[in-house]
Amino acid sequence: MNEQGLLVVLSGPSGAGKDTVLRCLLAQEKQIRLSVSATTRAPREGEQDGKDYFFVTRERFEALTAQGGMLEHAEYCGNFYGTPREPIERWRAQGDDVILEIEVQGGRQIKEKCPDSVGIFLAPPSLAVLEERLRARGTETEEVLSRRLEAARRELAHAKDYDYVVFNTTVEAAAQRIAAILAAEKSRYHRNHAALERMLEDAETFC
Amino acid sequence: MNEQGLLVVLSGPSGAGKDTVLRCLLAQEKQIRLSVSATTRAPREGEQDGKDYFFVTRERFEALTAQGGMLEHAEYCGNFYGTPREPIERWRAQGDDVILEIEVQGGRQIKEKCPDSVGIFLAPPSLAVLEERLRARGTETEEVLSRRLEAARRELAHAKDYDYVVFNTTVEAAAQRIAAILAAEKSRYHRNHAALERMLEDAETFC
Repeated sequence: MNEQGLLVVLSGPSGAGKDTVLRCLLAQEKQIRLSVSATTRAPREGEQDGKDYFFVTRERFEALTAQGGMLEHAEYCGNFYGTPREPIERWRAQGDDVILEIEVQGGRQIKEKCPDSVGIFLAPPSLAVLEERLRARGTETEEVLSRRLEAARRELAHAKDYDYVVFNTTVEAAAQRIAAILAAEKSRYHRNHAALERMLEDAETFC
Repeated sequence: MNEQGLLVVLSGPSGAGKDTVLRCLLAQEKQIRLSVSATTRAPREGEQDGKDYFFVTRERFEALTAQGGMLEHAEYCGNFYGTPREPIERWRAQGDDVILEIEVQGGRQIKEKCPDSVGIFLAPPSLAVLEERLRARGTETEEVLSRRLEAARRELAHAKDYDYVVFNTTVEAAAQRIAAILAAEKSRYHRNHAALERMLEDAETFC
């Protein structure tokens, strides 16, 4: 009954488990596409163009941005990062849902440009669990760890810019909850208004 | 993470399949309770007090209503019908979700009194299918049938008072979609605001 796929923005603090939950979700739900960001930074070893990022020149990035071809963009450490609009619009027009994994500033830009998008904030079940998960990686020094926890606290305060908050208690439950949110959103009144109107118009015809 | 169960209002035209879909949903989801209406009309054969209706006297009904004990009420054919507030509040406080199957006028009263409630409108996939289903029952005269179809068209116009529209294409799919809506609603930001606040307060404590 829906013509257009959903645009879903997923954010959450580092360590909340966004990548793992997304992998689990995408393995189950075949009509979901993952948006690929464009960047001007050089590819790292093993990174594939069009899969990890679209690697573009600074000139190309700036031209795309000037033409309105980026849904959001930002600069980090001298490199540009952005969300190309074209593949998202193409996929949604086909009826596929598109998920963007993006940090909170980018998430807010998307919500402003696409009020119809669905914002999901992935939160750890507690900050103690987040700390445990970061420690379990074993790759963080105490200093990096406390900086990441501080950043997580700041990011949690941005959950208010999102429509939903999913607590990542287990990967499967969180992926399932996100799938439920996508299904529910397809049934929201404003996305079905046109289908109902058509039903009533058809009724006029066969009367 | 949620303290209180949801209050869900299900409406839709006669023949849309509300009873069948609800039976399917309740068989799968054990934490959902079905609200039982109170009425002043006499029990029909086979109807059980407390299951089909709470059968009460007119005096009792009027006293309850005067005390604010009814979430909504209406009069049909000289009998009162209403939704008792007490069991709903008790179940929700236990964390159980409560579903009310109710017609559109009652649905609007509930939404006004409980803006936090979740309104779901069950629609047939088309009016042609609704007509087929009503005909398949074989119990309707042509006159009754055309009156019911006319009423269905009027009711469809009330879908705008609901948060969600679910098309009953198959019973299983519709029940599954309603279950997804309930799951998604539990993740809405405003229902998780307090849990996030607590997480941040705990963080202050352990810093």
